Amino acid sequence: MGELRIGIAGHGNLGRGVELAIRQNDDMELAAIFTRRDPSAVKPLTAGAKVMKMDDIESMKDCIDVLIICGGSATDLPEQTPALAKHFNVIDSFDTHARIPEHFANVDKAAKQSGHLAFISLGWDPGLFSVNRLYAESILPNGKSYTFWGKGVSQGHSDAIRRVEGVKKGIQYTVPIESAMEAVRSGSQPELSTREKHLRECWVVAEEGADKAKIENDIKTMKNYFDQYNTTVNFISEEEFDRVHNKMPHGGFVMRSGLTGDGEKTHQMIEYSLKLESNPEFTASVLICYARALGRLYAEGARGCKTAFDIAPAYLSKLTGEELRASML
Amino acid sequence: MGELRIGIAGHGNLGRGVELAIRQNDDMELAAIFTRRDPSAVKPLTAGAKVMKMDDIESMKDCIDVLIICGGSATDLPEQTPALAKHFNVIDSFDTHARIPEHFANVDKAAKQSGHLAFISLGWDPGLFSVNRLYAESILPNGKSYTFWGKGVSQGHSDAIRRVEGVKKGIQYTVPIESAMEAVRSGSQPELSTREKHLRECWVVAEEGADKAKIENDIKTMKNYFDQYNTTVNFISEEEFDRVHNKMPHGGFVMRSGLTGDGEKTHQMIEYSLKLESNPEFTASVLICYARALGRLYAEGARGCKTAFDIAPAYLSKLTGEELRASML
Repeated sequence: MGELRIGIAGHGNLGRGVELAIRQNDDMELAAIFTRRDPSAVKPLTAGAKVMKMDDIESMKDCIDVLIICGGSATDLPEQTPALAKHFNVIDSFDTHARIPEHFANVDKAAKQSGHLAFISLGWDPGLFSVNRLYAESILPNGKSYTFWGKGVSQGHSDAIRRVEGVKKGIQYTVPIESAMEAVRSGSQPELSTREKHLRECWVVAEEGADKAKIENDIKTMKNYFDQYNTTVNFISEEEFDRVHNKMPHGGFVMRSGLTGDGEKTHQMIEYSLKLESNPEFTASVLICYARALGRLYAEGARGCKTAFDIAPAYLSKLTGEELRASML
Repeated sequence: MGELRIGIAGHGNLGRGVELAIRQNDDMELAAIFTRRDPSAVKPLTAGAKVMKMDDIESMKDCIDVLIICGGSATDLPEQTPALAKHFNVIDSFDTHARIPEHFANVDKAAKQSGHLAFISLGWDPGLFSVNRLYAESILPNGKSYTFWGKGVSQGHSDAIRRVEGVKKGIQYTVPIESAMEAVRSGSQPELSTREKHLRECWVVAEEGADKAKIENDIKTMKNYFDQYNTTVNFISEEEFDRVHNKMPHGGFVMRSGLTGDGEKTHQMIEYSLKLESNPEFTASVLICYARALGRLYAEGARGCKTAFDIAPAYLSKLTGEELRASML
């Protein structure tokens, strides 16, 4: 088998991450990057990379084995993934949990009609965290599951801060509460409210002359975003902001506390965690790894839409079954 | 589909754990327990459970959907699993890592010839830990993997202690070294020697009049078992031993520290851990969960031998694909 030819639709943080992840996998190559901007404005990280207009993407359908769609979940992916699945095998990271069933149905229909294979909602949550929830809940049916996120930057909450009057720059970190995690690990299976699981930590550069007390109050009382949490608002200089808060770290924890045995009194604890210096780079690494699985499953005849739940682990690895059993089992 | 009919071959700690795990899954039922002992000496935990001689197992081949073989890896499973795969769909927890390729080949041949499906080497290591190694190494190709075990009872090392002259009772706990785990989590990708990763903690009841200094020295210098480790030997009373050291806790950590991004400088950390009050009960829960997957894959036509690497997560859950996507993705 030749190298897997990867197309990237969208060249934001995630698209650039995918470009970099391809470099780490010598069974893949970058076929082209597609953008809605002027292609000459896109600076690929790969020497000689082809950058094309999104409108011309269909002309490349015989040159791409897997197209990774790097748009946003709010408006891009619900349109793009079903539309592009008519012409390509596609992967996306659609992460609006509540709308996954609807997105799945749309993509499944498009992919089946055109004879393509599509993987949706990949990355770490949804994605690896989902897989870990599934394994843990299947193994320990009598138990309770918990997901904690962070410490990491929430894009949605950072955007919300920046919409507050008087805010020049702002960033929000979601912080899991250590004592809540310890309570889970103890096996007590606590009921935890939203406020008890996470803190929201905000760093703000105020416009000159802005009313800081009002900014702080506007943030802390913002419906749905902050009002259900304990929130801290820290004002800093623009210089400090640019120097310290220029990264996109994230991560989190999936835990299941379960009981087994006679009388169901034996405590068993499963925990999965990620500590990521770059959320988009890690998400990209997950997408690229599933691109390999997609190439293989497509060659075996799989069509339609699948999620991480449907893909056996062996498909993700470059190694053969024999090599995996000898080295990793 | 009716309830999945489970047979249990061998009724030691693991077999009893399987019996208890069946109770937690209402889509399964216990068909029969098979023993090499006198069946009347076996005390099943399930009211009305059928206990039969292992020699009569073939007579039950039409009454069992999945046979879970609960023998030991040293001598039982290499014989039993291929032999029983001629008449049953089977699952084992074969855990001699170095001999897995050979075991796989033997079981695969027997299962294919007779048209059965067999899952081998399931449990948590090999099993869940293997799956986590595979996911993590596939996602972060530039990185280093670490497995730590414990704190928990090592059966093999406890047996070794009990063979030392003057030892009446003995148990050994494998203890992961916290500072080594912290070094891994820091992203420094340390090279760790055997001694730097784990301590061995021994609790011994000496025979009356035994030479304790000699016992301690005999244990600490025992080739392969203890000589490469820092080992502590603690002498306690039989009363304390029986009261405190009567459980089989275990667990461990699979970690991968990897680098992504431009110049591969971004640190990404994946960690999976288990903290188990009962090793055999947890292992049994894993086996029973994979029995469900086996039943489904067999119905789909799968034959031969498979490992945890070959089984898509969705097969483990009682929920449908639609329910999983709506609730767990």
